Amino acid sequence: MIVMKTDATQEQIARVIKEIRRYGLRADVSKGAYRTVIGLVGDERKIPFDHFAVLPGVKEAVRIETPYKLISKEYSKFVEELSERMIVRVGNIRIGGDEPIFIAGPCAVESKEQLFKIAEGVKKAGAHILRGGIFKARSSVHSFQGLGAGGREEAEEALEWLREAGKEFELPVVTEIRGEAQVDLVAEYVDILQIGARNMYDQDLLTKVAKKDKPVLFKRHFGAGVEEFLSFAEYIAAEGNKDIILCERGIVPVGKGRSYTRYTLDLASVPAIQKETYLPILVDPSHSTGRRDLIFNMSCAAIAAGASGLMIEVHYNPAEALVDGQQMITPDELKDVIDACQRINKLIMPGRNES
Amino acid sequence: MIVMKTDATQEQIARVIKEIRRYGLRADVSKGAYRTVIGLVGDERKIPFDHFAVLPGVKEAVRIETPYKLISKEYSKFVEELSERMIVRVGNIRIGGDEPIFIAGPCAVESKEQLFKIAEGVKKAGAHILRGGIFKARSSVHSFQGLGAGGREEAEEALEWLREAGKEFELPVVTEIRGEAQVDLVAEYVDILQIGARNMYDQDLLTKVAKKDKPVLFKRHFGAGVEEFLSFAEYIAAEGNKDIILCERGIVPVGKGRSYTRYTLDLASVPAIQKETYLPILVDPSHSTGRRDLIFNMSCAAIAAGASGLMIEVHYNPAEALVDGQQMITPDELKDVIDACQRINKLIMPGRNES
Amino acid sequence: MIVMKTDATQEQIARVIKEIRRYGLRADVSKGAYRTVIGLVGDERKIPFDHFAVLPGVKEAVRIETPYKLISKEYSKFVEELSERMIVRVGNIRIGGDEPIFIAGPCAVESKEQLFKIAEGVKKAGAHILRGGIFKARSSVHSFQGLGAGGREEAEEALEWLREAGKEFELPVVTEIRGEAQVDLVAEYVDILQIGARNMYDQDLLTKVAKKDKPVLFKRHFGAGVEEFLSFAEYIAAEGNKDIILCERGIVPVGKGRSYTRYTLDLASVPAIQKETYLPILVDPSHSTGRRDLIFNMSCAAIAAGASGLMIEVHYNPAEALVDGQQMITPDELKDVIDACQRINKLIMPGRNES
Amino acid sequence: MIVMKTDATQEQIARVIKEIRRYGLRADVSKGAYRTVIGLVGDERKIPFDHFAVLPGVKEAVRIETPYKLISKEYSKFVEELSERMIVRVGNIRIGGDEPIFIAGPCAVESKEQLFKIAEGVKKAGAHILRGGIFKARSSVHSFQGLGAGGREEAEEALEWLREAGKEFELPVVTEIRGEAQVDLVAEYVDILQIGARNMYDQDLLTKVAKKDKPVLFKRHFGAGVEEFLSFAEYIAAEGNKDIILCERGIVPVGKGRSYTRYTLDLASVPAIQKETYLPILVDPSHSTGRRDLIFNMSCAAIAAGASGLMIEVHYNPAEALVDGQQMITPDELKDVIDACQRINKLIMPGRNES
Repeated sequence: MIVMKTDATQEQIARVIKEIRRYGLRADVSKGAYRTVIGLVGDERKIPFDHFAVLPGVKEAVRIETPYKLISKEYSKFVEELSERMIVRVGNIRIGGDEPIFIAGPCAVESKEQLFKIAEGVKKAGAHILRGGIFKARSSVHSFQGLGAGGREEAEEALEWLREAGKEFELPVVTEIRGEAQVDLVAEYVDILQIGARNMYDQDLLTKVAKKDKPVLFKRHFGAGVEEFLSFAEYIAAEGNKDIILCERGIVPVGKGRSYTRYTLDLASVPAIQKETYLPILVDPSHSTGRRDLIFNMSCAAIAAGASGLMIEVHYNPAEALVDGQQMITPDELKDVIDACQRINKLIMPGRNES
Repeated sequence: MIVMKTDATQEQIARVIKEIRRYGLRADVSKGAYRTVIGLVGDERKIPFDHFAVLPGVKEAVRIETPYKLISKEYSKFVEELSERMIVRVGNIRIGGDEPIFIAGPCAVESKEQLFKIAEGVKKAGAHILRGGIFKARSSVHSFQGLGAGGREEAEEALEWLREAGKEFELPVVTEIRGEAQVDLVAEYVDILQIGARNMYDQDLLTKVAKKDKPVLFKRHFGAGVEEFLSFAEYIAAEGNKDIILCERGIVPVGKGRSYTRYTLDLASVPAIQKETYLPILVDPSHSTGRRDLIFNMSCAAIAAGASGLMIEVHYNPAEALVDGQQMITPDELKDVIDACQRINKLIMPGRNES
Repeated sequence: MIVMKTDATQEQIARVIKEIRRYGLRADVSKGAYRTVIGLVGDERKIPFDHFAVLPGVKEAVRIETPYKLISKEYSKFVEELSERMIVRVGNIRIGGDEPIFIAGPCAVESKEQLFKIAEGVKKAGAHILRGGIFKARSSVHSFQGLGAGGREEAEEALEWLREAGKEFELPVVTEIRGEAQVDLVAEYVDILQIGARNMYDQDLLTKVAKKDKPVLFKRHFGAGVEEFLSFAEYIAAEGNKDIILCERGIVPVGKGRSYTRYTLDLASVPAIQKETYLPILVDPSHSTGRRDLIFNMSCAAIAAGASGLMIEVHYNPAEALVDGQQMITPDELKDVIDACQRINKLIMPGRNES
Repeated sequence: MIVMKTDATQEQIARVIKEIRRYGLRADVSKGAYRTVIGLVGDERKIPFDHFAVLPGVKEAVRIETPYKLISKEYSKFVEELSERMIVRVGNIRIGGDEPIFIAGPCAVESKEQLFKIAEGVKKAGAHILRGGIFKARSSVHSFQGLGAGGREEAEEALEWLREAGKEFELPVVTEIRGEAQVDLVAEYVDILQIGARNMYDQDLLTKVAKKDKPVLFKRHFGAGVEEFLSFAEYIAAEGNKDIILCERGIVPVGKGRSYTRYTLDLASVPAIQKETYLPILVDPSHSTGRRDLIFNMSCAAIAAGASGLMIEVHYNPAEALVDGQQMITPDELKDVIDACQRINKLIMPGRNES
């Protein structure tokens, strides 16, 4: 990264950018009130840092060793708009602030009635954001793929319901984008664009979604280590979009014999990731455990571990759900979860801030 | 699946298809000289098999229990064009036949000279198909992403080289498609469309690629079990494209302490998969081990395990390669690998056919 | 299991036991004030349950499907002394009750001074039980193996310090037993016998330790699924010793790229295990994370997940420790952990009891 | 390691050993016809290598960086009796030489008749060593634990059968030792002492077995990386016993969905391990796949990968076996395996020696 002096001129900045491009890299420019910082996208080893350090207007030329540079804590220390702990704003919701944020809703949108009934329930329970899957990522082509699979018209209708439900109950909305062809359409209707675990490695999709200039909810793949998770988040940041909300949702269980949960929720990754990046991180106790009877405990644990919020699947009648009924809780149960989490959050906030 | 009688009429077949759609499923129709078999795409549980069994012209209505149905051995027993061991044909190359097939070439296409020099080398060494990456899937946005990252013109130029090299050295060519936006373009230039490990879960990409009616080289994700790998291959088959070439390339290493290989090559998956599906399966010893000094041994082992061929990265000067130099072998070394593999193949063919 | 009638006679019980042995199994007899229950050790499939159901004095003959039977919730429903949530008592410490229990101390005992200084510190911080390794399980024969490696005399001296420190600061003590030759010796000196993760699969050691009739702290192997963990705890129970304290300490990290923690702490296993067995379960945030700076968060998370307590490594000067200094916290930091955990425990107790 | 000069005197060697002990380490002395090499057991960092290098009679003082030093290729370069590829001799069987060695027999010894019938079968099929489990390591206390579980007399009877069968059919014999209490007994009866996968981490057992001065067959734990596997083999070497035969038998499957094999056979570990150590390595296709129908293919693959031999479970009637029947092959099938493997071995020997 190239840190400019506070009195650097526009021409000096332009020259640095031009030089960066000359070496085959791209520039990620953050202009603050106080100073400008220029991140590097590409292979830093091609850059003669000594040469950049002495260009007019340059204060420092700093190498960042990790494969994720633009989302690193080190970067945020120099960039004014990125505090140590960045807040992603969606309407007047602040993700990454002092209060944990709850994203809730059905796994899949099935009908307008189902969606509105659940939206009303999660709003009353205290949730902040409404989720609802329209393009479902499924392991089997023979399973229900969401209303989005019915063609563009059905997809738009379901997206319209989602937008309306959001308005009606004053909840920003989020839905998953599974393929590049859906990006433009979905971005018109929702407030947060979700990349699901299965698409974490899909760098073309990431790049296309990033360009929409909306917050991106980015879930960890179940076969990815933490380093790899952050390295792919960097693909979003490299498009100039730093409004990234990370989400831990479990990794493949390892070990002989059954594990009794669908995935292994890696809660220690939450504080570990918070030491590496300024991005907020949520936890999804629904997909990770796959068990309704573990949601309460694991939600409390996630907040206690320091998560900035939770993403929970809710249905007024889980037995009726077309997808993943065994892991959904009711709006009443959600209320208990939110209450407990908020109380735990209050308890640990002081310790959390210190760490 | 619905197996029609040999004397079933066109109307009877049409009626069965119509009924299938009425239940919200799609039909995968295989018309043989002898009889027609209709596979089901969608949730079989919605289908009253008893009802279908007594429709006019129907011989049998058979449930297939695995999540992959259209690529299962069970399905191939009823479908004439699919023998127990299907051959995927590319020009006059037969993948899945008695001779192992060798796909070789550079990890990434870097220049016309580099490509042609390597193409010449692998042809002389005895390879059957030329590979060369143009759109590279990389863990870091800061790494070289292939010539395809330079924009459409550069991508087309590189694709053009690949096509020319294929013609010049009489080698069908294959390259990876990483995103939906590349499908149309790449399909114009190459003989086989590759889905890389990182995109295995990208069902929208799979569906789009499948429609191109060209053979698809489909690599296993490093976090996927065998069942999941086959379940996603089914996404391709469900579009009517059964020319799928599977490829094992290693899974994430597990265990405390270093593993000394980049991934764990799961060679037992080769015969295990051959018991489940009629599709041919190759092995990639380059990415799986990440070590040039293990390629010879693991290539021999893969063929001995029953693989239908190998995909190997080759460079005339590995130290010069922009990507993955530490795992490339030279054309001369490739020749030794091919010779040893062909001799091993001859030895094990009898035992292989019995099993 | 064979449930006897409340008025079953001694002869009737004896006959059932004799019959069980005749089929080549062993009997695990629980005589309650109210009734006697006889568990089966061995292959249940050899037993004609119908035959047993009609023996005089028998109320019910019940098959338990899981591989762990004597530690299952199902078993505890019939056995008076085992409540749904069993309390393991050590002096007047109750593990598995309403209050979380904290086991703390140095990784390895290094000297009398070191041990006493740390013992004093953890007592002041509010810990309930003192730990200290004398026979260390190490990955390398070239690493410090604990004072126990110095021969019987040195081992006894260190064990003597541990016993004295326990008395001086009124803390029951626990240490790890690594081999069969240590069982008799260690059992003379300590209150709880620990089986470390590396020895989880060592069934001969388990059997020998179980016979000592002291509580056993039993840690999960880092390559074991939950089912396997419980199946090996059953080896201890099969010797008639149900005073088993389970401990989750992380499994091998999976996923490409670095994980940033030494192991993956599987916190969801805590409530999942509590649905399967009546045994209490603790969490070890020290070995699982391997990082001092994550102990506070993961301790809070473990208690929020429902753990009955924690096992934490403490040193007054972590930088000086001969083993694992990078994961130790100071007594002052332990105090903060205990305070936060106790407050979280109070918050979640109501929800926990319901679940 | 300290390499002595060829003309070093006994006193000079004694002084070096004394110095090593003074620093708290142990010495592993290899006296060759030509020169003496002294390996170090313990923390090398405590040793002032500069000081040792100038002691009288010392030629070189060499640091070895890996956690396994005494079994490393580096060590063997200086020690005369250890060639680059060490041969472990058992009678006139040479493990690690030019011919692959086949260890075969029943999973568990069930009766004298069963053992003799199988021994006769495997001898005719061409096997070199007879295996038979008497103390079985089992995941469930409720499963058959081998005849050794019946008490000392039954164990001795079964061991006696094994010894007799070995004599009758001229096959050295190997059986597993599961606990320290079995070491003395078993060592009286068998030619090779086996440490099973579940006991790989049991360092006290390793140490005790090593002292018996018999070859040790050492299996990799299913949760261990290669580095950890070798680090524990070093525990055996540190007792002065270098007659260690390594055995790869599969690691825990990873990945979503079923894997279709019991474990993941890590064949690439075979050549990778051969680059690190001079010890021979075998492969067990029986436990790793858990499937009779994969044994032929994976045996061929293992030899092609460079393994020095195989360990295969055999039963004349697999359906009758008390343990693991689904993975056993018949003596006739074993013959086919051995024939194919020997032919493959001949083919690859030249390439193998070069690499």
